Amino acid sequence: MTRKIVFTSEPIVAPALPEFREIGACVEFSGIVRETEGAARLSGLQYEAYEEMARHTLEAIMSDLAIQHLCTAVTFIHRIGWVPVGEASLFIRVLAKHRGPALRMCEELIERLKADVPVWKLGATA
Amino acid sequence: MTRKIVFTSEPIVAPALPEFREIGACVEFSGIVRETEGAARLSGLQYEAYEEMARHTLEAIMSDLAIQHLCTAVTFIHRIGWVPVGEASLFIRVLAKHRGPALRMCEELIERLKADVPVWKLGATA
Repeated sequence: MTRKIVFTSEPIVAPALPEFREIGACVEFSGIVRETEGAARLSGLQYEAYEEMARHTLEAIMSDLAIQHLCTAVTFIHRIGWVPVGEASLFIRVLAKHRGPALRMCEELIERLKADVPVWKLGATA
Repeated sequence: MTRKIVFTSEPIVAPALPEFREIGACVEFSGIVRETEGAARLSGLQYEAYEEMARHTLEAIMSDLAIQHLCTAVTFIHRIGWVPVGEASLFIRVLAKHRGPALRMCEELIERLKADVPVWKLGATA
């Protein structure tokens, strides 16, 4: 399974899709900053990462998940720094022959990201 | 939950995203025609639909799923007619406040589509 892991301080742009003949499912997930977080109204969120460790942990998680879910390629992009409301902090694309593994990979990668990867967010009220 | 259901004989183009401030998750699924189907090598698939009934059934499925999974908007596009290998026959976009309902909605909508909606495919070997 090919992996691409990107941390960027720029707005996330989904990379162009490669040409393929054996991909049956493309799953894309964008995690977007919302204005309302509990009782607070935010203008955005500040994301910080311990990037080297985050990258290392993501590689390990992807290796682990690749055993369980047969996928062809995973693209992971996380925005770092200030992300205004309405813009994506996270983009994940999974390409696979079948939809089941693609959906599982996407969902479990997000769960593991939230649980295990050193990326933090700090809110700022509007 | 807003719904958009489109059947088209043209290549699928994802509609522009609306501006929003309370969407936290955007899930997009593309189902793509693969070259290899079992022992056969395909050049594409021919899709046919009983469109009026398909639309009616999809509306009912979406209403049903909307009770279980709190989502803001669902866009469903199915290509009809000849779809060459490497191109999408299906596009689904789900917008929701939270990722859990968005992922569930997407996955269950695909399952129900395959099970209950009158859309058929015919292969053509390369």
